[in-house]
Amino acid sequence: MMARRTGRRPGRQDTRATIVKAARTAFADRGFDATTIRQVAAAADVDPALVHHYFGTKNDLFLAVLDLPVDPAALLEEAVAGDPAQVGTRLVRAFVTAWDSPVGTAGAALLRSAVGNTTVARLFRDLVYGRIAARLVRRLGLPPQEAPLRTALVASQIAGLATTRYLLAMEPLASAPPEVVVAAVGPTVQRYLFGDLPAVTGEQV
Amino acid sequence: MMARRTGRRPGRQDTRATIVKAARTAFADRGFDATTIRQVAAAADVDPALVHHYFGTKNDLFLAVLDLPVDPAALLEEAVAGDPAQVGTRLVRAFVTAWDSPVGTAGAALLRSAVGNTTVARLFRDLVYGRIAARLVRRLGLPPQEAPLRTALVASQIAGLATTRYLLAMEPLASAPPEVVVAAVGPTVQRYLFGDLPAVTGEQV
Repeated sequence: MMARRTGRRPGRQDTRATIVKAARTAFADRGFDATTIRQVAAAADVDPALVHHYFGTKNDLFLAVLDLPVDPAALLEEAVAGDPAQVGTRLVRAFVTAWDSPVGTAGAALLRSAVGNTTVARLFRDLVYGRIAARLVRRLGLPPQEAPLRTALVASQIAGLATTRYLLAMEPLASAPPEVVVAAVGPTVQRYLFGDLPAVTGEQV
Repeated sequence: MMARRTGRRPGRQDTRATIVKAARTAFADRGFDATTIRQVAAAADVDPALVHHYFGTKNDLFLAVLDLPVDPAALLEEAVAGDPAQVGTRLVRAFVTAWDSPVGTAGAALLRSAVGNTTVARLFRDLVYGRIAARLVRRLGLPPQEAPLRTALVASQIAGLATTRYLLAMEPLASAPPEVVVAAVGPTVQRYLFGDLPAVTGEQV
């Protein structure tokens, strides 16, 4: 059956592109969680095993759709391990290190697309919440009722850093050494994750 | 002389559009400070008095180029007055209030353009530094050698709030009541403006 399908789609690149296109539509329409490899395969008219063969897991497929060379969640693994009192600093350092590398080019392209296109924005939100936040919450033990707003606040500072340092090249932030950025912004992320935020814990503000 | 020029450019709207186009090029090429009304008038082939007549000051012309219905610096006047210990809170409140109003639509359009277009990015940086930061520094008395990085850090959090709350609509931040946002983000801005930041003051980090 795969052989026959391969016969109709001779190029491996064509097949990959067809799967990515079907996956982009599925993720954008249903979100990451509700999308299955089986649905994507059906939409692309290929066998599910072929999707797994080309892309690996659903997570890998999602990264391929976003054209990200690395899994942002994997970059966070080291940052969320270790002393919780320094996790903000380590997260900002991991982020700046990644963006100062070629990974940043892919990140910039994704962020530019996301702010201008609602479909990509939906995929971006799924990346942040489904892929990154879910892992942060699990690893850091954030209370589930506080985690969404704390995560969004962290995202606001990190996205703002990406926007001003990289997309808009606002000096002196754009040229500041990584450790200057880490020292200034790390405590913000730390407070958003663990600080006493009445607005987050539901107390009267 | 103006009458003859008016004869060649019969429409007031045409003349306005010609001036805005010339001003956009001039601001983008030379920056806000180095651009003069006289240069813009010459490039648009009109009398400088006509530019003043249609647009007012150079600042007003700059806002027209950016298609902003209000002067962001004017929105800050109230925020920077009063108790310095609460200025971060008041700045975030002024920002959220403005973006939750129709002004936000213009702001969103400008930010979207800025991240995708280097010319608009240059104009945006001029807006933030030339128009907003200059006033903040003057009114808040920030040390001149610290002001640029402190301003850029404030911009990073505010731009990130605009990106996540408005452009990407990341929940629960997108739907959070203004006071929740103010309570969570105000202290960040306060710290960036006045906090003990070794990275900013030049101490070893």
